[in-house]
Amino acid sequence: MKEHSTRIRKVMTEVHARIAARTYLPGARIPSVRAMAQSMQVSVSTVVEAYERLVAEGVVHARRGAGFYVAGVAAPLVLTEVGPKLEHEVDPLWISRQALEPAGATLKPGCGWLPAQWMFEAGVRKALRATARSQAEQVVEYASPQGHPPLRHFLSRRLAGFGIDVPAEQIMLTESGTHAIDLICRFLLQPGDTVLLDDPCYFNFHALLRAHSVNVVGVRQTPTGPDIEAFGAALAAHSPRLYITNSGIHNPTGASLSPGTAHRLLKLAEAASLLIVEDDVFADFEHTPAPRLAAFDGLARVIQIGSFSKTVSASVRCGYIATRHDWIQSLVDLKIATTFGGGRLAADIIHHAITGSGYRRHMENVRMRLAIERDRTAEKLKALGIVPWLMPQAGLYLWCRLPQGKDAAALAKVCLDDGVVLAPGNAFSQSQTAGDYVRFNVAQSADARIYEVLARALNA
Amino acid sequence: MKEHSTRIRKVMTEVHARIAARTYLPGARIPSVRAMAQSMQVSVSTVVEAYERLVAEGVVHARRGAGFYVAGVAAPLVLTEVGPKLEHEVDPLWISRQALEPAGATLKPGCGWLPAQWMFEAGVRKALRATARSQAEQVVEYASPQGHPPLRHFLSRRLAGFGIDVPAEQIMLTESGTHAIDLICRFLLQPGDTVLLDDPCYFNFHALLRAHSVNVVGVRQTPTGPDIEAFGAALAAHSPRLYITNSGIHNPTGASLSPGTAHRLLKLAEAASLLIVEDDVFADFEHTPAPRLAAFDGLARVIQIGSFSKTVSASVRCGYIATRHDWIQSLVDLKIATTFGGGRLAADIIHHAITGSGYRRHMENVRMRLAIERDRTAEKLKALGIVPWLMPQAGLYLWCRLPQGKDAAALAKVCLDDGVVLAPGNAFSQSQTAGDYVRFNVAQSADARIYEVLARALNA
Repeated sequence: MKEHSTRIRKVMTEVHARIAARTYLPGARIPSVRAMAQSMQVSVSTVVEAYERLVAEGVVHARRGAGFYVAGVAAPLVLTEVGPKLEHEVDPLWISRQALEPAGATLKPGCGWLPAQWMFEAGVRKALRATARSQAEQVVEYASPQGHPPLRHFLSRRLAGFGIDVPAEQIMLTESGTHAIDLICRFLLQPGDTVLLDDPCYFNFHALLRAHSVNVVGVRQTPTGPDIEAFGAALAAHSPRLYITNSGIHNPTGASLSPGTAHRLLKLAEAASLLIVEDDVFADFEHTPAPRLAAFDGLARVIQIGSFSKTVSASVRCGYIATRHDWIQSLVDLKIATTFGGGRLAADIIHHAITGSGYRRHMENVRMRLAIERDRTAEKLKALGIVPWLMPQAGLYLWCRLPQGKDAAALAKVCLDDGVVLAPGNAFSQSQTAGDYVRFNVAQSADARIYEVLARALNA
Repeated sequence: MKEHSTRIRKVMTEVHARIAARTYLPGARIPSVRAMAQSMQVSVSTVVEAYERLVAEGVVHARRGAGFYVAGVAAPLVLTEVGPKLEHEVDPLWISRQALEPAGATLKPGCGWLPAQWMFEAGVRKALRATARSQAEQVVEYASPQGHPPLRHFLSRRLAGFGIDVPAEQIMLTESGTHAIDLICRFLLQPGDTVLLDDPCYFNFHALLRAHSVNVVGVRQTPTGPDIEAFGAALAAHSPRLYITNSGIHNPTGASLSPGTAHRLLKLAEAASLLIVEDDVFADFEHTPAPRLAAFDGLARVIQIGSFSKTVSASVRCGYIATRHDWIQSLVDLKIATTFGGGRLAADIIHHAITGSGYRRHMENVRMRLAIERDRTAEKLKALGIVPWLMPQAGLYLWCRLPQGKDAAALAKVCLDDGVVLAPGNAFSQSQTAGDYVRFNVAQSADARIYEVLARALNA
């Protein structure tokens, strides 16, 4: 026993010495347990124990699945180390990576967007050709800091159709919808602030808020928006600064905000000085528009953001922020400071595509196809005992409950080995109470092999 | 006197009441001094005094040139309120806005980039047409999270030419060079950390670091890089976490890092655990490459970033980060969380343009034209008593001293009224000791009217 302890001490001393000699630099990875055991001629368990004590001392720190690192003046921001320690399959960043990596033969019902074949390819190609012929400034110059004026004017008219009265001067273009929310968070939040999210909500909101070092509180989602009593209670208990939501078609549930919930939510928000980000990326998927918080509120405390990645092209990066007149110039400054001017190209291509005659027909077609695939997918899932929480009026998603006793993270793991990427429920859930839910994207769920893999995995 | 005091109190009470009644919401602008004086039937000086007392109470806060705002739970991040209070003309954000706003007839020797007519317009048009014909995924899908592989492989080969040995797996694409630095700052810095900058340096570094709430320390720039004694003293005095610089062609001075300075700088950095961001956006302007810190260091503590906005197109947004293998995946996570996938389009267009046969010829031509314009501009400036601090070997800039007793900010103000945008020295200077310097972009300084306006302004 004494000898074991001496050997542990020997390994620790060696690591200390190498750090002091700057052989191991702050932030650098130290040798793996196995490599260290070999080089120092000790057992693996000795090194494990030594490293654990070094972690306890704060001399090194462990990163899940990535090894041990020398502590620095300050450790870098490793998002997978921030927030609750999640299973691999329900970590939001893990899901994003699975969905974003080149597909190959992989089937991706867990992916959040339309297949390439469903997107507005013809419109984007046409826009690319038009831009190739446009004036030199368009092709090589920075955009004006607030973003391409024609697209901002178009957005102003479009938002008017949702009852949101906002001049082009109060709209700023961004690199994406996520970038829009990130800029707003940088503008409004400080580390330690509290942010409300729907539970469940779009999983990347969790990843994004980790990067802002804020506290997150979830509010149970109902088919007509957040549970208003829980919402009021969360305001009273946590004094959150911001609430981030989708009102139109909720991700992942497909719920639509009702006018009554919108009204009561805004009254509560007003009384509690709560600010709201309304993420409206799914607007063009709606058959009948749901109420918009930004329309009810007149953009006093609601900031609306959106993008074109779900409808036109995700390859052409462009999003927007519509907000109060007294905030827009500060947001422009923040955009200049952190990404500089922004380009004209993406905004110009999106403007061409979305104002072309084909876009309306394209989206009509997408909505029709989604309605068909939604029914088909629901039916095929039901045959496996997987049941939608709600049949949404529109959109890409079915938020489904697994047969009793089944765990979505475990299922996702098994399915991935068979080439099927799922989106397990707890990736969307702050409270980690959606362990038996899975989000299906109906546009990515047509392939019969998905159901074969699911059936095998469920019976395993 | 008593009556004046009563009236002040009356205005203050009214503002307090309206805030309590939520007529004025947190963060909202309250009426202007003039409007309030009129509505309350008191003098302007009464309102000024009342507002100043409300500011002292912390009930409202003043924003330079923008009025008075109700204090919130926490005030939003208004970059123009962070850091030293600068004259309008030397605030880095003000200069960026002047340069980025649509030009019209305005002459912009203060602008940081080439005129549209000098950019790689033909190459970008060709690339746009090629992309318009490429496969669907290219046109409408998200990129892989780390960025378009062909461009990363190209960058790996290109960096090898500068002695930087970095596989494509250690390169991540970003939305721009500024975005690259911003992600690194988010990854490595915490509020309150200290960052070293060259004095003078690219003014947007100042704006960017305001957004990170860090302390900035400037180190005097010499014609061969930073003053090494001052650099060592700054390390000892401030224990900075990070140093941000351009080694190739320094902005704004045109200086080039010498091998000796690079070596000594890296030894100091190693001893002090200092990390370094090397911004290499001007690489393709060099006739003979200067030493790269990333090459000397092997990317242990140096992170290299770059973009194509200065050489190919600023309209097509794309930058990169080359860094240590154990940091790249955390940076990818941070990119996903804050901007999601990134697009394929921009990277594909840049890849097409930069690997086309025309690019090398294009840059040879640009370098030749710059050499001619550099001499011409220097001569025309000297005739006005404006003298370059250094005749740079390459690049866009001449960092020039005004005739004795002349103030660059005042000059910039007068010239702007005549339609000429200048870049006054203190916008680049942490110590605010460059009040008699101006940066000229030789590619934007051909027009004779610039010198007429300058001559008039200098004689005013």
